[in-house]
Amino acid sequence: MKHLLSTQDLSRDEAVLILDTTAQMAATQEREVKKLPTLRGRTVVNLFFEDSTRTRISFETAAKRLSADVINFSAKGSSLSKGESLKDTALTLKAMGADAVIIRHQASGAPHTLATAGWLDAPVINAGDGTHQHPTQALLDAYTMRRHLVPSPLGKDLAGLKIVIVGDVLHSRVARANVHLLHTLGARVTLVAPPTLLPVGIESWPCEISYHLDEAIDAVQPDAIMMLRVQRERMSSSGGGFFPSPLEYTRLYGLDGRRLARLPDHAIVLHPGPMNRGLEISADAADSPRSVIVEQVTNGVAVRMAVLYLLLTGRTDAATTSLNAPKENS
Amino acid sequence: MKHLLSTQDLSRDEAVLILDTTAQMAATQEREVKKLPTLRGRTVVNLFFEDSTRTRISFETAAKRLSADVINFSAKGSSLSKGESLKDTALTLKAMGADAVIIRHQASGAPHTLATAGWLDAPVINAGDGTHQHPTQALLDAYTMRRHLVPSPLGKDLAGLKIVIVGDVLHSRVARANVHLLHTLGARVTLVAPPTLLPVGIESWPCEISYHLDEAIDAVQPDAIMMLRVQRERMSSSGGGFFPSPLEYTRLYGLDGRRLARLPDHAIVLHPGPMNRGLEISADAADSPRSVIVEQVTNGVAVRMAVLYLLLTGRTDAATTSLNAPKENS
Amino acid sequence: MKHLLSTQDLSRDEAVLILDTTAQMAATQEREVKKLPTLRGRTVVNLFFEDSTRTRISFETAAKRLSADVINFSAKGSSLSKGESLKDTALTLKAMGADAVIIRHQASGAPHTLATAGWLDAPVINAGDGTHQHPTQALLDAYTMRRHLVPSPLGKDLAGLKIVIVGDVLHSRVARANVHLLHTLGARVTLVAPPTLLPVGIESWPCEISYHLDEAIDAVQPDAIMMLRVQRERMSSSGGGFFPSPLEYTRLYGLDGRRLARLPDHAIVLHPGPMNRGLEISADAADSPRSVIVEQVTNGVAVRMAVLYLLLTGRTDAATTSLNAPKENS
Repeated sequence: MKHLLSTQDLSRDEAVLILDTTAQMAATQEREVKKLPTLRGRTVVNLFFEDSTRTRISFETAAKRLSADVINFSAKGSSLSKGESLKDTALTLKAMGADAVIIRHQASGAPHTLATAGWLDAPVINAGDGTHQHPTQALLDAYTMRRHLVPSPLGKDLAGLKIVIVGDVLHSRVARANVHLLHTLGARVTLVAPPTLLPVGIESWPCEISYHLDEAIDAVQPDAIMMLRVQRERMSSSGGGFFPSPLEYTRLYGLDGRRLARLPDHAIVLHPGPMNRGLEISADAADSPRSVIVEQVTNGVAVRMAVLYLLLTGRTDAATTSLNAPKENS
Repeated sequence: MKHLLSTQDLSRDEAVLILDTTAQMAATQEREVKKLPTLRGRTVVNLFFEDSTRTRISFETAAKRLSADVINFSAKGSSLSKGESLKDTALTLKAMGADAVIIRHQASGAPHTLATAGWLDAPVINAGDGTHQHPTQALLDAYTMRRHLVPSPLGKDLAGLKIVIVGDVLHSRVARANVHLLHTLGARVTLVAPPTLLPVGIESWPCEISYHLDEAIDAVQPDAIMMLRVQRERMSSSGGGFFPSPLEYTRLYGLDGRRLARLPDHAIVLHPGPMNRGLEISADAADSPRSVIVEQVTNGVAVRMAVLYLLLTGRTDAATTSLNAPKENS
Repeated sequence: MKHLLSTQDLSRDEAVLILDTTAQMAATQEREVKKLPTLRGRTVVNLFFEDSTRTRISFETAAKRLSADVINFSAKGSSLSKGESLKDTALTLKAMGADAVIIRHQASGAPHTLATAGWLDAPVINAGDGTHQHPTQALLDAYTMRRHLVPSPLGKDLAGLKIVIVGDVLHSRVARANVHLLHTLGARVTLVAPPTLLPVGIESWPCEISYHLDEAIDAVQPDAIMMLRVQRERMSSSGGGFFPSPLEYTRLYGLDGRRLARLPDHAIVLHPGPMNRGLEISADAADSPRSVIVEQVTNGVAVRMAVLYLLLTGRTDAATTSLNAPKENS
């Protein structure tokens, strides 16, 4: 693992290594002082071409907990908006000695280009690109599922778990990242969406498709259900257009108390956040004891610590991780 | 003290404890290396829904001087502007392990909601909410007055001091925060403002009211005078409206050299900044030897260090403060 | 050296001291852990009235590599945009205990005012003011030239080197800063530009002027050629106006493969970035082995480390620099 660009690049063993390292990192976060000296003296750059406060501060927190220095590079108002190429930005970051670059970009594939064009030596971490991928989100989701649904999870994958993912798959990098990672980890995934919110080529994804949420819940009896965020601006206002109206969407694809009760007793509820309460998920579902939505955020910091740790130290094992820092020059 | 939301919540002893701790912090800031290891490994979040560079960097400086990590979370352009609720933001910050949340919000009461709704475990510090409160501003004002006007101030309050506060009380959280804190500390406060710039219910505030600055100065013989910032956009442009015109305001309520000369010899001049020189305060008054306006900024860092220290360590005494850091995990 | 405001203020010995210290800093940046404890506990403020992500993160990286705390103070949306004076901003930063202020301002002369008006005790570093100066850019350019073109460079200046600078000199603080520094260091500078892009008073600058790039290259046989960034918005769209059109500019003043081949074999190519590839420089020139453009960025961090180190520690020698930190208070 040199970069983290897409969950499609991860082997089962690599994914399990990240989840195991996440478990180690999570354990350190239960202490009163959560900071580790592991990456002291390293510089991590948050290169954000799209606003995303939640993801940015999750990565920033993760990097600072490992004692790295963080440089926030928002592309808004920068020379990037004056037409500087991604290449020149990459060369600049390399020249400044960035030890890792976390990139968020509106264009699918930009992180791949950044990582593979030969401009940078540093690891590149995809923090969300267009409608393509969001691998740390999928990893935190998988970690959260494993923690709740797999006994003695260390070293294990998600073999045999049944996961239902509901919503706007067409525009969702979260769905795409999850389908591939969950498949790699042995889970069986069912996507539920209106036909208008499914992408072309969905047939080749390693999952099943359903247009009916109630039928899917009854048929699959899922161990976990993940509600995707709906982008209100993509909804039809009249209901007569391409996409369902908000009211139709909530009725057909929203998770409410009634649907929650149809799930198996042990099933958990996930959402990548931020939620539209009352649209894709009702307040009582969001706040129910089955909801692990808040825990996903906590696990997000731990999984990003794990990814930064593995990519920046080049370790390929989690078990013997000492989490110690290099000596500071003096 | 679990949070710092309003000066109305502070008992005399709590307020004196904060002022005494501020004195300790201020002493450390006279050293060449001002940084203390006290909060190493703690994460402090600046959650700013309103722009306020001065207050933000004062808190950021205070937190960094105590070796905390600081995450700046500007609500502009974040999912908050996409309609995420304060509740979900709070749950996110809790889940990421924030050790303290400093909040600035345009809505009066938002910090109180954040602190008391049960969403967060961490202390909440109000950095200004609507027209309601700004407790660290009032504390730095009180600290500055005590330092100049009370001999051997440690452990003492402001009993017997006479303070005049002048200006747009209606829109001023600074005035409100000061009136309550100064009253708690035993000072006698007189507010001076045009009737149109006084809020409904002012009769119940623990202070006296005057509409005439010159009369108030002569009658009160104040130990300190505090000029509030005027919001130019709230002024009447013609002078025929509800509020005075800028020219009228300056003539009736501005502090100039002539009024400065009417004050007792020992009286000091305060202003929360940023000043409108030539409007509520003349340049010679702002820069006179009696002005402690610049010192207020210095004391602002110390008072915020004290508040962060007391809330994050749970200490309830200032005298035995060791200011030492917890051991770093390694 | 108390401040760094303009290359015109630097003596030959001061400039050589900065270049020698830069060499020391650069050596530390080749280690795996690049961070030095030198400025631990010091607070460096980035006071940016103009957006400039590249320069801001270069200074931020430099300060963090020396273990300083960095406060980013963007003037956008701050009280500065509400009309706060530069004086009050300066007094605020002084009062907060800033140990150095790095200022970028659209008005030529603002850093000089900030440094000399008596508002601040701290060193002021000019990070670009209007069309006036950008001294750290010129220093990194000189360092890059010395490294490539002067054998055993330590302690040496640029005596005898021939430098050609091409482009929009009229609006370029980079050109102005370079001309004076290069002259001080003993180099011979030739500016090449269309007459419409040369400032009034250019006759008094210590350099030669040419309107023809090809002629200048042939006549000077430069050791280094520096291409200035063109501001597209200053171009004439029709070519019939005051300034050349982009096409004319590229034909007459752009560096392409053909012109690159006319340079002496050892000549290097510089550009302050960000480049307009295809306008003032062709892609093959930008990426040719003679281009040191990326190395300039690396040297930018080292030169800013050197400047911060020299100004904040008050050292006047580079050779005996220990780069050690003061003891932390505990």
